[in-house]
Amino acid sequence: MSDDLSAHLKSRCKIVDEALNRFLPIAQTRPATIHDAMRYSIFAGGKRLRPILCLEAAEACGGDLQKALAPGAAVECIHTYSLIHDDLPCMDDDDLRRGQPTSHVKYGEGIAVLAGDALLTIAFEILAGTDLPAPCRYATGDLVKELAVTAGSRHLVGGQVLDLEGEGKDVKLTPAELKYIHLSKTAALLTSSIRLGAMTADATPKQLEALSEFGTNLGLAFQVIDDILDVTQSADKLGKSAGKDAATDKSTYPALFGLEKSRTEAAKLTAKAHEALESFGRKADQLRRIADYLLDRDY
Amino acid sequence: MSDDLSAHLKSRCKIVDEALNRFLPIAQTRPATIHDAMRYSIFAGGKRLRPILCLEAAEACGGDLQKALAPGAAVECIHTYSLIHDDLPCMDDDDLRRGQPTSHVKYGEGIAVLAGDALLTIAFEILAGTDLPAPCRYATGDLVKELAVTAGSRHLVGGQVLDLEGEGKDVKLTPAELKYIHLSKTAALLTSSIRLGAMTADATPKQLEALSEFGTNLGLAFQVIDDILDVTQSADKLGKSAGKDAATDKSTYPALFGLEKSRTEAAKLTAKAHEALESFGRKADQLRRIADYLLDRDY
Repeated sequence: MSDDLSAHLKSRCKIVDEALNRFLPIAQTRPATIHDAMRYSIFAGGKRLRPILCLEAAEACGGDLQKALAPGAAVECIHTYSLIHDDLPCMDDDDLRRGQPTSHVKYGEGIAVLAGDALLTIAFEILAGTDLPAPCRYATGDLVKELAVTAGSRHLVGGQVLDLEGEGKDVKLTPAELKYIHLSKTAALLTSSIRLGAMTADATPKQLEALSEFGTNLGLAFQVIDDILDVTQSADKLGKSAGKDAATDKSTYPALFGLEKSRTEAAKLTAKAHEALESFGRKADQLRRIADYLLDRDY
Repeated sequence: MSDDLSAHLKSRCKIVDEALNRFLPIAQTRPATIHDAMRYSIFAGGKRLRPILCLEAAEACGGDLQKALAPGAAVECIHTYSLIHDDLPCMDDDDLRRGQPTSHVKYGEGIAVLAGDALLTIAFEILAGTDLPAPCRYATGDLVKELAVTAGSRHLVGGQVLDLEGEGKDVKLTPAELKYIHLSKTAALLTSSIRLGAMTADATPKQLEALSEFGTNLGLAFQVIDDILDVTQSADKLGKSAGKDAATDKSTYPALFGLEKSRTEAAKLTAKAHEALESFGRKADQLRRIADYLLDRDY
């Protein structure tokens, strides 16, 4: 990553963290346990990729970064809730995330379930407070519907259901099922983060469509590359247990298509993501640089 | 209950059930498991008290019942999600609800957590689709904020946190703590159901305030009476295991204040609920009759 981009992401990260700190009740708010647990997971060192994409999309559409902070914080709350629930013993049963004890290890399972519930709920409270420009072709209800559909049973939750049902099974997923899981679990929330930012900038339907295309291909490419790296890289370089997917019989792109075809697919998706931004000209440069940073890995 | 009221509640229940059936994805929607699990708990025989109060409040404020159906369905989704998560082994660990296996017994813990998540999420999708009258002093964002605050860490989730922390402890709750739990777990969502209905009727701030007062006292009275009946009635009459609260060391009104003082308190709260409706005249008759039905139990 260039020094420029690194400094830019760092400064964006700070803005997002400050917003999250404002939007979440202080840790001493009664009952203290739940607010402490919400903050523990929110401030566990996430890279704020989704909120940053939300801010960049607003600026790419000529909008004001400040107006995109509420949706940015909301998508981060949704992302964090989904990690807390995914880590539970009855789901993926993970004890560590980013080297720290997961919520249920630190607070117990009951509080972890409730901390997830509370973050999911506050996402909509925060989003409902979005200060849209006037006039704007979108209303607060449109933003709420966008996020609720993405977070719900047909996308984010639905992807986790298929993931849960697929694990440990001898039968491999079909390519269509695998794509559905990637779309639901990764691409959908990335795309909505981008769309919500654009909506706060009163983006045209055409801009919104182009950004959806960008987000979907970015999310899918990111996931395919992750699958490839899981096979090819050492645990050390990856910062997590390499080969973990294979060990738990998870279907992955390389498992279904082989490494070579997976690499071609990743390159194709990356190209499509860039094409989708063409009409934005220089205004989308930050989005391009972030896409490069996410996708230009040694796969 | 009079035949009149019985017929009225039955017809309202039918309207609410039809709305829920329209708002929820059909059970075959992919992934089928989650949509089946959502419907299993939603259509498990609930009395639809909260949505019915939502409809009645809209009519008491001169509004259109049809416009209150979306918030009514939304609060029922919130109520049902909270039951699914409360029943989990890591919370109250209940195997049966209304004589049927609870969600985690039927679908496994992972799917039960996700079914709760999905119902919590779809509540906001449904609510965002509310068709408000024009003009209306409330916007969709106000409705979303109302429900999110009530369902969140300071109310519904917060009450469950205190409940969870209080269980099995030797130390009794203080009266203030017990009231906080009752307010958070029962009164808050009842009150919001009523307020949301009123908001779809463009209720005046004064009407909204009176209905909040009604809802809070109704909810608290209902809970005190439940506590009393748990001590005084047989399991048979109650339809659930009597004395269960005492068996799990839960603090209750009778445990803290004795039966006599609890009865006085229940009567006082009931009177306050009725007083709150005075300014509505005959328009609030259905709300009064429902309050009577809920509170005129043999305590």
